Parts: sequence; structure tokens; C-alpha cells
Amino acid sequence: MPLTRVSLLKGKSPDYRRAILDSLYQAMREVFEIPEDDRFMVIEELEPENFLYGKTYLGIARDDDLVMIQIVVNNTRGPDKKKALYARIAELLAKSPGIRPENVLVNLVDVPKENWSFGMGIAQYA
Amino acid sequence: MPLTRVSLLKGKSPDYRRAILDSLYQAMREVFEIPEDDRFMVIEELEPENFLYGKTYLGIARDDDLVMIQIVVNNTRGPDKKKALYARIAELLAKSPGIRPENVLVNLVDVPKENWSFGMGIAQYA
Amino acid sequence: MPLTRVSLLKGKSPDYRRAILDSLYQAMREVFEIPEDDRFMVIEELEPENFLYGKTYLGIARDDDLVMIQIVVNNTRGPDKKKALYARIAELLAKSPGIRPENVLVNLVDVPKENWSFGMGIAQYA
Repeated sequence: MPLTRVSLLKGKSPDYRRAILDSLYQAMREVFEIPEDDRFMVIEELEPENFLYGKTYLGIARDDDLVMIQIVVNNTRGPDKKKALYARIAELLAKSPGIRPENVLVNLVDVPKENWSFGMGIAQYA
Repeated sequence: MPLTRVSLLKGKSPDYRRAILDSLYQAMREVFEIPEDDRFMVIEELEPENFLYGKTYLGIARDDDLVMIQIVVNNTRGPDKKKALYARIAELLAKSPGIRPENVLVNLVDVPKENWSFGMGIAQYA
Repeated sequence: MPLTRVSLLKGKSPDYRRAILDSLYQAMREVFEIPEDDRFMVIEELEPENFLYGKTYLGIARDDDLVMIQIVVNNTRGPDKKKALYARIAELLAKSPGIRPENVLVNLVDVPKENWSFGMGIAQYA
């Protein structure tokens, strides 16, 4: 059920972008235990003037490889699971496609179970 | 007050895309009883490598006509109203522009009334 | 920590778009007291048929200069702070780049503190 949006600067290859989605999916499979094939993801490629980030906010050195990841997800995971997800996402993105952990921003948006319909006009989780 | 985002694959005609927005607006008018002219909607057209979906998640056969619909809305509707909205959206999109119900994904994000300003720097609902 | 998305019609200059982001940042600095360099913002430029808005909803006269601003933010601000933010955003955008207050739509999405990782795989606020 997660709905995932990745925002990044234009210029990365299709393979690179696909690797981001694959790593995110794997992290959510492992840590949030989402079912197989539960992947709904978009990538938004932005021109430099449409993508602005704090280069040193919180003492973290970001650069133009930054990815902003927003995941809308059921509100059934507690803070520990969320922390585990961030750690695993950073770990897997470092391996593939090779993004420095400094460049991985994640934001979760929690919603209740009745806020989803995955087709057929039905709220499958409610 | 709903803020609606439709994400789909590039390649659909302007008429087709407009029909999606019109059907969504009609469904929200009928079921959520939003006022006339309360329509704020964007469509995001994506390249194939930037749009990934589970082709059979929950046993539903999706294809490249999938539309991911995200609606940010006041938190004043209960589960029954939400279910009625999903059903009506699927029904109306099947009629116009003719989208199979399998290809209709809806995600709601609830917010409190004070989270909106519709102009003039004022929180009109709070 | 705010993650800000500005949706508008294609056709504005880079300077104009940058001015929007600068005014939003300044408003959040002043009213929400976000730290220096805490700016993570994207702009989404849309074709006319992908950008639909109520031209007179709530009696406010909008036109094609409308900006839809969505800010995901920690749930630590009450209604008064939010109202002050809307007012300040409208005020600053009127000054630079010169947007009529009628054309400023703001939507906040609140999330708990543990819903952010700003890099390194760590939930810096939790």
C-alpha cells in the first residue's frame, strides 16, 4: 500500500532511477513487511531551478544527487519500525544505485486503512 | 477543498485527461458534497520508467492505463463516505473516459480544517 | 523540516519561480521558526490542461497566476501559527514575485516528528 514519490534532479539514467525504486521496494518489503507486488511508485525529475535543498541542514553535506522520498503509508508502524526503514533505505540506496546516505531524505505520511482503494472501487483494507 | 493529484503514463489526449478530472469532480460533488467550483486538481504525466505499479497486487489486473489518484481532503468524512467515494469514482471513470475499475487507485490524505488557505492569506475553514 | 511543493502553470521565468521559493522560506523562517538552511522545495510546472482550479470558489477571483502550495510539516503548530503563516506567505508573495493574494492557495499536511529522515538513515527529530 505505500504510495512512493521520488523527487530528484533531471539527468540520471533510467537504470539509476530504476535502481532507486528497487532499493526502496526491497527496504519496505524487509522492514515494513509489505506484500509482494505492493509497489506503486513515481519518479519526478526536476530542473535545477525547481529543486532546492539545504546544503548543510543538520550538519549533513548534501549535493545534487539528493533524493527526496515521500511515502504515504498506513499508520500501523511505530517509531522503531520507521527508524529501521530509514536505516535500511539509506543502506540499500548506498549499494544500488550508489547514493551517499547524506543524500537520502525520507518523509512518511501516515493515513488510516480506510484511505485506500487499490482498484474496483473498493477499500480493500477497511 | 480537496486538492487532487492524478498520476498517469504520458500519452493520453487532453480530452481523456480532462474527462478524468471531470469525473473526479462529479464524484466528489455527489459523495463528499463539496461546493460548486471547489476544484483544485493537477495531472502529472510520467515516462514509463518513472511510473511503476504492481500488476497483480491484491489479485487485481492492472495495466498501463492505471491512474493513481491522491486526494488531500478535510478529515470530516468517515469510512462509509470514503467507501462510497471510491465506488463512485470507479463508476464514473469507467463511463468517462472509460477506465477499467482495475486501473483506478485512490489514496486519501486527511487534514484538519485549519490546514487550508484558499487565498487572501486567510484560513477560510478555521 | 518542511517539505514544500509548489504547483503552477508553465511559463514563469526562473527568477519568478525562485522568488516564490525565497518568499515561502522567509515566511516559514519567521512564523514557524524553522532553522536556517531548512529548505527542501520543489516546483512543478504544468500544462494548462493539467492544472485546473476553481475560478471563483469562496468568492475569490483566481486566474492563471494561481500557485498551489503544499507543505508537509511537523504537527507541532496550532491553528494560530498556521493562520499567521498563511497571512505572511500571502504578504511576501505579493511583494516578491508579485502574486495577488487571491492566487495563493496553501495546504498543510501535518506529520509526527518520527516521520522524517534528513540523511544518514537517521530520524533526526525522533
